[in-house]
Amino acid sequence: MKLATLKDSTRDGRLVVVSRDLTCYSEVGHIARTLQAALDDWEHVAPRLELIAEGIETGAQPTTRFHEHDAASPLPRAYQWADGSAYVNHVELVRRARGAEMPASFWADPLMYQGGSDGFLGPRDPIVVADEAYGIDMEGEVAVITGDVAMGSGPEAARDAIRLVMLVNDVSLRGLIPDELVKGFGFFQSKPASAFSPVAVTPDELGKAWDGGKVHLPLLVSLNGRALGKANAGIDMTFDFGQLIAHAAKTRNLLAGTIIGSGTVSNKLDGGPGRAVDDGGDGYSCIAEIRMIETIETGAPKTPFMKFGDQVRIEMKDHAGHSIFGAIEQTVEKYQGAGLQ
Amino acid sequence: MKLATLKDSTRDGRLVVVSRDLTCYSEVGHIARTLQAALDDWEHVAPRLELIAEGIETGAQPTTRFHEHDAASPLPRAYQWADGSAYVNHVELVRRARGAEMPASFWADPLMYQGGSDGFLGPRDPIVVADEAYGIDMEGEVAVITGDVAMGSGPEAARDAIRLVMLVNDVSLRGLIPDELVKGFGFFQSKPASAFSPVAVTPDELGKAWDGGKVHLPLLVSLNGRALGKANAGIDMTFDFGQLIAHAAKTRNLLAGTIIGSGTVSNKLDGGPGRAVDDGGDGYSCIAEIRMIETIETGAPKTPFMKFGDQVRIEMKDHAGHSIFGAIEQTVEKYQGAGLQ
Repeated sequence: MKLATLKDSTRDGRLVVVSRDLTCYSEVGHIARTLQAALDDWEHVAPRLELIAEGIETGAQPTTRFHEHDAASPLPRAYQWADGSAYVNHVELVRRARGAEMPASFWADPLMYQGGSDGFLGPRDPIVVADEAYGIDMEGEVAVITGDVAMGSGPEAARDAIRLVMLVNDVSLRGLIPDELVKGFGFFQSKPASAFSPVAVTPDELGKAWDGGKVHLPLLVSLNGRALGKANAGIDMTFDFGQLIAHAAKTRNLLAGTIIGSGTVSNKLDGGPGRAVDDGGDGYSCIAEIRMIETIETGAPKTPFMKFGDQVRIEMKDHAGHSIFGAIEQTVEKYQGAGLQ
Repeated sequence: MKLATLKDSTRDGRLVVVSRDLTCYSEVGHIARTLQAALDDWEHVAPRLELIAEGIETGAQPTTRFHEHDAASPLPRAYQWADGSAYVNHVELVRRARGAEMPASFWADPLMYQGGSDGFLGPRDPIVVADEAYGIDMEGEVAVITGDVAMGSGPEAARDAIRLVMLVNDVSLRGLIPDELVKGFGFFQSKPASAFSPVAVTPDELGKAWDGGKVHLPLLVSLNGRALGKANAGIDMTFDFGQLIAHAAKTRNLLAGTIIGSGTVSNKLDGGPGRAVDDGGDGYSCIAEIRMIETIETGAPKTPFMKFGDQVRIEMKDHAGHSIFGAIEQTVEKYQGAGLQ
């Protein structure tokens, strides 16, 4: 089943069921008005939405043309957005680039930060930033939405609580990170609003590409139409989503609608950093990783962060080449201070 | 106007207007079913709720007896909970206790962490923790709920966006903090669910005790019936709520229902740390601060963190001695792993 939230005059948009090929949708307001409402009562609501999804595929269900640019993020606002950093390769590179050892515990104990979740960007909304000097970067990631997870749940129970899978652009302002790290309270200003894919899908839609805790498919990231990365989200993911969710639930319950992110997808090559797509490698899911490799190799970064007008696209395709989640496609724009976007 | 959320069978409870003396309430489901719904459309909803509040005071409005223990936190779940650390005195003590200098920038640039907001404890709910060794501590704070705040808003515009004021117990697991600080991603497992006061009030309810950005009244914190602190929330608050909100809004919009916390209320004495209430001082709003002072004075902390069965109470009274927000009163209990609390 594939779900989307269409933008309307409300803060939460309206839930629709989308066809497997992303061409059309059916209204489901009589079942659940919003995705959060569906998640709040998933046991009762999901089977009814599944019937609609089946009806769409068989042609029994009336549908309307689906346009990805009409979609908000599946949860336009959420009660929790917690982002892991499960591709420890990426973390190790960050450290190496600044000449720091990575503690061995990072291979056993996940990194995770609490993100802002009160207002996400739509998948085609611009990334509005006041100053290019903030170091505007994308982070291509996979994310899951959970049901209720009891405090202290283990990875297995946590995997059972995964309701939906989607993609995310965890926009990062790299220039603001060093000062926030020094303060020790985690990221805040360096993590503006994230954007999620137009469609969130139940894990069964991924077929064999879903092993219960990871998505074994390449994450396609491009910048201004040029391929930046196609790292496989199932490779080098040190902690699967079950482990990430269990980490988040160690000392508190997680409530339905919690979004857990994988962290920037990153693949090693022969035990070392990856290689650019242009050079025959699988590339990168953020600019910072390229800059880290440049720093390690030449002593200084060369590739600039995003500028106003740059466009980032994040997508994932199945083995037949069909887009699974629709595409996140965002242009960087200068903030004009005109109020709420 | 004083607002509360009564627990019911729903995840968001139901909004009621409470009398100034906290003895009775009126149903307002015909105006707004939940506090979030009221905040989403505050301009239209607030005047109608104010009429109910006036009717309660004049006796024109039918009411029911209000019991604080029937209340959930005003927002049982929220889209954002961002906690500042505005009493820099407290931060300086933390640093001194571990022999570290505090960067001078901490006096100009607020500390703030993104907290979990998917499920808050009710003001009389137990604090359920798996292990006493986690170092269970209270943090007595003031918090505000905002309306929409545009990215880049200054402190003055931010002050205008303050809709409601309440108290919070930002429960902290001190034993888990050092390892999380090392990881650099901020607090996560060390910050389990927070609890807020039974009632949230519009700033005008505070009269002269509200100066637009601070509450000039003592925060009463007690442990097992013994006074722990009565530090004045208006004193030594280096950053007022306008500055804290503006900090949070630097790179993103804040959406209605955002909760911003003050950080642990802490007063200096003669330029140094405070003194215990028993010794004639204004005391402390968390145990960690007592332990820091003990560490600075004797080389080691003496006062233990909370144990199972301990009860913490947090309240604030007006100049006539009446409780403004009702009391947070929570007992620490051992988690039995039986699932969602």
